[in-house]
Amino acid sequence: MVQLGANRYGKAEVRVMRVARGAGPGGGDVIRDWNVSTSLSGELAATHLTGDNSAVLATDTQRNTVYAFAQKLGPVPPEVLAMELAAHFVASQPQITRARVAVEEYGWSPVGESRHSFARTGELTRACRVVHDCAAGVSVLAGLADLTVLNTTNSEFWGFPRDEYTTLAQTRDRMLATQVSAWWRYRDVSVDWDEVFAVARKALLSAFSETYSYSLQQTLYAIGERIIEAVPAVCEVRLALPNKHHYLVDLAPFGLANDNEVYYPGDRPYGLIEGTVLADDAPDPGAAWA
Amino acid sequence: MVQLGANRYGKAEVRVMRVARGAGPGGGDVIRDWNVSTSLSGELAATHLTGDNSAVLATDTQRNTVYAFAQKLGPVPPEVLAMELAAHFVASQPQITRARVAVEEYGWSPVGESRHSFARTGELTRACRVVHDCAAGVSVLAGLADLTVLNTTNSEFWGFPRDEYTTLAQTRDRMLATQVSAWWRYRDVSVDWDEVFAVARKALLSAFSETYSYSLQQTLYAIGERIIEAVPAVCEVRLALPNKHHYLVDLAPFGLANDNEVYYPGDRPYGLIEGTVLADDAPDPGAAWA
Amino acid sequence: MVQLGANRYGKAEVRVMRVARGAGPGGGDVIRDWNVSTSLSGELAATHLTGDNSAVLATDTQRNTVYAFAQKLGPVPPEVLAMELAAHFVASQPQITRARVAVEEYGWSPVGESRHSFARTGELTRACRVVHDCAAGVSVLAGLADLTVLNTTNSEFWGFPRDEYTTLAQTRDRMLATQVSAWWRYRDVSVDWDEVFAVARKALLSAFSETYSYSLQQTLYAIGERIIEAVPAVCEVRLALPNKHHYLVDLAPFGLANDNEVYYPGDRPYGLIEGTVLADDAPDPGAAWA
Amino acid sequence: MVQLGANRYGKAEVRVMRVARGAGPGGGDVIRDWNVSTSLSGELAATHLTGDNSAVLATDTQRNTVYAFAQKLGPVPPEVLAMELAAHFVASQPQITRARVAVEEYGWSPVGESRHSFARTGELTRACRVVHDCAAGVSVLAGLADLTVLNTTNSEFWGFPRDEYTTLAQTRDRMLATQVSAWWRYRDVSVDWDEVFAVARKALLSAFSETYSYSLQQTLYAIGERIIEAVPAVCEVRLALPNKHHYLVDLAPFGLANDNEVYYPGDRPYGLIEGTVLADDAPDPGAAWA
Repeated sequence: MVQLGANRYGKAEVRVMRVARGAGPGGGDVIRDWNVSTSLSGELAATHLTGDNSAVLATDTQRNTVYAFAQKLGPVPPEVLAMELAAHFVASQPQITRARVAVEEYGWSPVGESRHSFARTGELTRACRVVHDCAAGVSVLAGLADLTVLNTTNSEFWGFPRDEYTTLAQTRDRMLATQVSAWWRYRDVSVDWDEVFAVARKALLSAFSETYSYSLQQTLYAIGERIIEAVPAVCEVRLALPNKHHYLVDLAPFGLANDNEVYYPGDRPYGLIEGTVLADDAPDPGAAWA
Repeated sequence: MVQLGANRYGKAEVRVMRVARGAGPGGGDVIRDWNVSTSLSGELAATHLTGDNSAVLATDTQRNTVYAFAQKLGPVPPEVLAMELAAHFVASQPQITRARVAVEEYGWSPVGESRHSFARTGELTRACRVVHDCAAGVSVLAGLADLTVLNTTNSEFWGFPRDEYTTLAQTRDRMLATQVSAWWRYRDVSVDWDEVFAVARKALLSAFSETYSYSLQQTLYAIGERIIEAVPAVCEVRLALPNKHHYLVDLAPFGLANDNEVYYPGDRPYGLIEGTVLADDAPDPGAAWA
Repeated sequence: MVQLGANRYGKAEVRVMRVARGAGPGGGDVIRDWNVSTSLSGELAATHLTGDNSAVLATDTQRNTVYAFAQKLGPVPPEVLAMELAAHFVASQPQITRARVAVEEYGWSPVGESRHSFARTGELTRACRVVHDCAAGVSVLAGLADLTVLNTTNSEFWGFPRDEYTTLAQTRDRMLATQVSAWWRYRDVSVDWDEVFAVARKALLSAFSETYSYSLQQTLYAIGERIIEAVPAVCEVRLALPNKHHYLVDLAPFGLANDNEVYYPGDRPYGLIEGTVLADDAPDPGAAWA
Repeated sequence: MVQLGANRYGKAEVRVMRVARGAGPGGGDVIRDWNVSTSLSGELAATHLTGDNSAVLATDTQRNTVYAFAQKLGPVPPEVLAMELAAHFVASQPQITRARVAVEEYGWSPVGESRHSFARTGELTRACRVVHDCAAGVSVLAGLADLTVLNTTNSEFWGFPRDEYTTLAQTRDRMLATQVSAWWRYRDVSVDWDEVFAVARKALLSAFSETYSYSLQQTLYAIGERIIEAVPAVCEVRLALPNKHHYLVDLAPFGLANDNEVYYPGDRPYGLIEGTVLADDAPDPGAAWA
């Protein structure tokens, strides 16, 4: 005999562009470009066992709700959109005991002095994820992805164990590059979301830039520590840092020196460093990472 | 003050093609095409805090180990490769207390009667994930991804709640399509891996095909149930089923009928149904899903 | 002063799923899964120069036309859909002097004995491209993409020139793999399209499999020659063959032999071999490749 | 009987990172991040017909040559790298009569005041393509891809023909968005490549921003015209502009207005507008676009 375990359902990747005409400095338009995914949990055994959908708020309805809230809320920070949506689903559907809403936000910058023209900035994707749980309360994660950074120097890697399969040479000077995926958890959800995102992003970049690194793990820890120090509302940081290897090209066969000048970036395989940094007094995460 | 939380590191996406010449039926070659990702956890605070790498088996070494084991083991099922690698890392590195090894396997079929020529079959990706934990023991997950299936009929969706944002019409006949991502957990790791994979895959397909569906959740549950019934060694199934919506085209403006004959598949947004089905006596998963 | 040069416009990637209920052998459904792109050329200077759209059949209309023709034509071969659409646009819009319609078709196979359930086959994408030009007439290209094949042996590469930048060793036995992109041109458009596609595909596979290869160029030529010989209606074949390098892993540092058993597939860079094979009496292509 | 037609071969996607230490303003490092593809044509019948490779400069050698030239040339504009490589292949290999070298360049900007840290800018990809042909001489194309821009207003679309398949409403105010792919051809190859690229890019953006548009074709023409006017060394511009449709969401069912405030971006299908703008006295392109 079998039974139903954990489950959830929702609408993924609802794309929304919200324009607020003339709302920007200088009378230009403001735009927010979102990719919203909703996910609901609760008393949903019936639909699984018998196809009785009386508790299943259609994913089509969830999509519509995203559109309607985008209109009502205006060009708010993505965290606000996610919190409002999550609260709505739990409040309005008695059978739903938990809602998770994730938002990706893509950046645009005005073209020249134009009030109506924008160009996509592609240097990172901003993200947030809100869980509104009847029992555990509201939790907010924010973060970023697709931010690619490199240091041309100030990175070493040596002193690692050598077993029968180890061929890697030790190095006192290597290029270090990674594509940052970061999530941080707020202990305080009454902040200025755009402001704290900007501070966290800047802390991340400066930690990467200023850390003389003996391992990507050390850099990871420095980034987490710096974000927590810079944003008191943050109590936990989780990072996934692929080591985007840049290999020094051997130019000796061609009679050429290569004094750390010519590298070839490799696609696969890549090192993958994942880790968590917590404030000593970080509260229990509850359902934040669910 | 901050502290280090959970962490792991490894080499991701080590691609390996293993050829066993003449080992197939009729003297043809056998090939296994793998994408291996390793991930190690343990006493790794030093590298995070000070850059001391004396406990850090290099990810480059992990990659080499994958290659060496592929040679030694031959064209084994991916679960065997993963189990042997995970056991090796934990056994040989005292500071490593847990190893996770994930393998994707891509299918190839012989071209005609050739003993040396193969064509990629693209209908699914086979996957497995082994966690070897010093405390919790060995766990094995297997599964598949990228399997896209559809039913042209035998699917309805109605009886769902209607709130102020609901516009979806009820339907007594719809096309149902999904791209299956499935993981199942073994309670018994002394099975014929290729055989049980084939049985699970067949059970999955037949459950999808034979279930008259009132919701994708119902289909999900049926798939999980069918796999557990078909493979006694499996105690748990986790599924993620995107609802690949096929919308009926409105041809009335052109004076044409559309009796469920012309659909347009949408890319985004899509419903996403996730759920778990368990045997009533499923043992505790330990670190299996970590 | 500037002037307008060549131009065209249309709707790209119109996805359509056409179902013919009960039309298959045994009373099962037949499905055709298409991705259609239309492109029109003609007297279109006005819209470029002044924004006068009186000659611009909207791309939205082109999309609607694809849907309507899918309904009217039924589950025909993609070449038929493309020919009918291209003829329609040129015939119905006086200002349009050329229409190009490209169709990709994705394969599905029935699940078990089901009459309504299908699974995506992923081994290749079928494609065609029709140009209907008022002056040059109708031309039909067909082809395939995403077909990945490999030979474990029967491939050598040696005798190439060695300059100051050459380090590659000669080899008398290598793995040869490629992802075939092929287009062939018909001189006769009154064929059984599904039949000739099947014959061409089989010829391609057998040529790849049976050619003892000293270079991927030689394999390319053999494929083109074989398709033209197998399908008299074909007069020209164009191929793009990326050399999906499989590098032999050096296992010597681990005390292991590697008698062509363990390879790592590389992602980038890759060799790219492009070439054309023609029947000696191939007619002028006209606008076929435009 | 069959014969060999046009053909070429080379190494695609050779990734190179070139660092010039301390060469930047303020003593910071300068980096150039390239993706180079080479392609050679000439007397290559033998390898196709018999596998005789005596004229086939190995693609592995071509890759090595890219690395060596990156070292020798330093962090030059991509056009210089491409011209030098193309000239080298034709000059050093008597059987090679044409070389085509394409380079993509990815942008990086310094992190804060750091001299060694960089972050990928993702707003566009710079590209160039050089053809060095023994008969036709040297031609240089440059361009960009992946530049996504939108206007929140100042775009209309009406006055288009209405046939039996036309349902699109006319609009006097729509959002206009596209992902620009542009190539321009130089008549003069003794320019400051970085400077003219910057001027062309700025002209493109300002033309998009400042054109009140009645069709994307009109915007296309304006972009081409503006680039040619801004950069006298450019004689031809080719553009491919996908119309990234942003559809107004119908919020009326929810009792909400939508005064051009909430849009959903669609993925597929999309309009695709392609066109060429030429200087009246543009010289013959020769092999530039081959």
